[in-house]
Amino acid sequence: MGIDLRFVGERLSSRLARLGEVGAIPGGGVARLALSDADKAGRDLVVSWMRELGLAVTIDGIGNAVGVRKGKEDLPPVMVGSHIDTVRTGGRYDGNLGVLAGLEVVAALNDAGAVTRRPLAVAFFTNEEGSRFQPDMMGSLVYVGRLPLERALATVGIDGASVGDELRRIGYAGGAPTGGTPRVHAYVELHIEQGPVLDSEGCTIGAVEGVQGISWTEFTVTGQANHAGTTPMRMRHDAGLVAAEIATFARRLARELGGHQVATVGSLTLSPNLVNVVAQRAVLTVDLRNTDERALEEAESRLFAFAEQAAAAEGVGIARRALARFEPVAFAPELVARVEAIARELGYRTRRLPSGAGHDAQMLASVCPACMIFVPSSRGVSHNVEEFTTPADLDAGGKVLLRLVCELAG
Amino acid sequence: MGIDLRFVGERLSSRLARLGEVGAIPGGGVARLALSDADKAGRDLVVSWMRELGLAVTIDGIGNAVGVRKGKEDLPPVMVGSHIDTVRTGGRYDGNLGVLAGLEVVAALNDAGAVTRRPLAVAFFTNEEGSRFQPDMMGSLVYVGRLPLERALATVGIDGASVGDELRRIGYAGGAPTGGTPRVHAYVELHIEQGPVLDSEGCTIGAVEGVQGISWTEFTVTGQANHAGTTPMRMRHDAGLVAAEIATFARRLARELGGHQVATVGSLTLSPNLVNVVAQRAVLTVDLRNTDERALEEAESRLFAFAEQAAAAEGVGIARRALARFEPVAFAPELVARVEAIARELGYRTRRLPSGAGHDAQMLASVCPACMIFVPSSRGVSHNVEEFTTPADLDAGGKVLLRLVCELAG
Repeated sequence: MGIDLRFVGERLSSRLARLGEVGAIPGGGVARLALSDADKAGRDLVVSWMRELGLAVTIDGIGNAVGVRKGKEDLPPVMVGSHIDTVRTGGRYDGNLGVLAGLEVVAALNDAGAVTRRPLAVAFFTNEEGSRFQPDMMGSLVYVGRLPLERALATVGIDGASVGDELRRIGYAGGAPTGGTPRVHAYVELHIEQGPVLDSEGCTIGAVEGVQGISWTEFTVTGQANHAGTTPMRMRHDAGLVAAEIATFARRLARELGGHQVATVGSLTLSPNLVNVVAQRAVLTVDLRNTDERALEEAESRLFAFAEQAAAAEGVGIARRALARFEPVAFAPELVARVEAIARELGYRTRRLPSGAGHDAQMLASVCPACMIFVPSSRGVSHNVEEFTTPADLDAGGKVLLRLVCELAG
Repeated sequence: MGIDLRFVGERLSSRLARLGEVGAIPGGGVARLALSDADKAGRDLVVSWMRELGLAVTIDGIGNAVGVRKGKEDLPPVMVGSHIDTVRTGGRYDGNLGVLAGLEVVAALNDAGAVTRRPLAVAFFTNEEGSRFQPDMMGSLVYVGRLPLERALATVGIDGASVGDELRRIGYAGGAPTGGTPRVHAYVELHIEQGPVLDSEGCTIGAVEGVQGISWTEFTVTGQANHAGTTPMRMRHDAGLVAAEIATFARRLARELGGHQVATVGSLTLSPNLVNVVAQRAVLTVDLRNTDERALEEAESRLFAFAEQAAAAEGVGIARRALARFEPVAFAPELVARVEAIARELGYRTRRLPSGAGHDAQMLASVCPACMIFVPSSRGVSHNVEEFTTPADLDAGGKVLLRLVCELAG
């Protein structure tokens, strides 16, 4: 573009700190549950910043806020965004980073007096976390037309309040339309990794290839309670043993499939759960994730086959129930490649990786080319008051974002 | 002996039914927790039967009742016994059978007008179950001098009452001495198997070789809580996985050691126990039992080695705590052989087997030759209101008991 654009990392850090004071909780964390008073205060602050920077702000029916900086031509905008709601004991970076870095991109353009060919939009989407209202990513789901506004508004939260009532109460039931396919040229989301990979490998920038597909299965194993002393091994129908076999198989499965396959048995409950009674019942969950849908399906089918076979061998009953199933989302390969290339040009150590958590970007990916830029989470900690990313890494992420957005906006 | 002795099974069944009415609970079960009002009523009934049969009844300081039928010579008696306390939801057979069958042995001798060379004693021991006061087998422990009376009396139960106070309250703090080595020629206990072996194999009589040694270990595995999506497999320290590996190893260990080795992981608890969080902590118990002490020690050492190695491989911490450890008890081989031979002579299908549960006989085994006769438990069910043994099997057990006692008493 020939214009000198400077991303001011200190200003980003300062905005993160100021937004972090809204709903602050002990230990340096933040509690801004979606549509709470704290969320309203955070929204008001970010919208005021958008307006200060000259953005034309619209609020839609689900409370998504979009601030637009005009381009030379009336084309679909390049959008930068994320969310500013948090979990109950959240950190200052999750979501907030992507929105506030977007504001700094605008500020950098303003500082340089530059006008892009395409408009530039900075957005924050309602209730990405899903801590108060389910499903998560609610605002972006409505934005891309995959969840009807009426259904979203009728959602009742953990405290009995509805999304619609709460939106009106805090003044964010806006008039901008939803339901069609939004006109967006491309979407870029800068986010903390929320995992340990970049931090442990000393990388500064992650080029996110996509979001893992998720398969959650609950198994209920029904055996026979028996005396641990008087029942010979050959006469047992041990629900706990089959649960343990499934748990060890899940690890073996992840190892054998390799790639980005992960498998977790995080929940396992026996009953009666007594030292001297063979377990009558076991309930366990298996969390499978993969960036590749076919691999994820293979993981599921091997898991299910193993579970059936292990149950049959022990003479116990087994039932399974799908708790969640989402297909993987692949980000636009040309954008992923650009993130990687720009990061390298800027001298940052970079690697490709999948996102293990869900993000608004995966919803936007269904209506336009989308991608994400990850910066390290110290020790992989997130959804925790100890969430931390160094100012240098924040600055690096902002610089990559600025370069990519300028390329896309022309 | 040349005298026609007839064991009257109907009378045994009738006494079991009448004693079963004391403390009866819905479903055909019995609740006579040690030293409760119901236990007092049961004791009163059994002592009255002892006196009706002409036995000289003494009660010792821990409430053990011994009814003696004189022999021709003043020698140490042959003792038949068990217990009449029950668990909270117990059946009619556990313990009661051994005591009441002893009374029928006396009745058979009375009916025939026979006098044995040695005296014959029928005993019931206090608090075998341990449901209200720990340890279990308390009365027989005191009887054989392995638990000081004062310590037993000071024991406080789950309801805050002490053994000493409750014994006085129900009138069973007797004057017969304890603390020395009791003079008993031999001890025979008829009992239900409380396991499924005899029932499933169609055997009527079990010649009990001994009581399994017990080793209870609690493992606490300390890993790292991590996001199930964002944490690559290679970076995990999964406490739940190690717990599951120990559980599957326990089964493998029992299979490899064979013989009477059993191994059970009945209790396994993860935290935080959430579908999408790698378990930070797992607490599990391993119950190992074997009739052979050296084999049991080998099982323990292989288990402990495996646990250490599995923990190291996953990079988690592991601590273990012994919850219980009892050496196996072997019954007198010559008595075991006689049980088997007599049962066969009487035409009963019989097999040798270990006892998986603890019994008063294992305490008596430390002061005299002791043995047990098992009769089948329908479907192996015990400590349950559905506990059941057929009248024919009760009768068979009584006949074997009568023959053996007469042999021993001369």
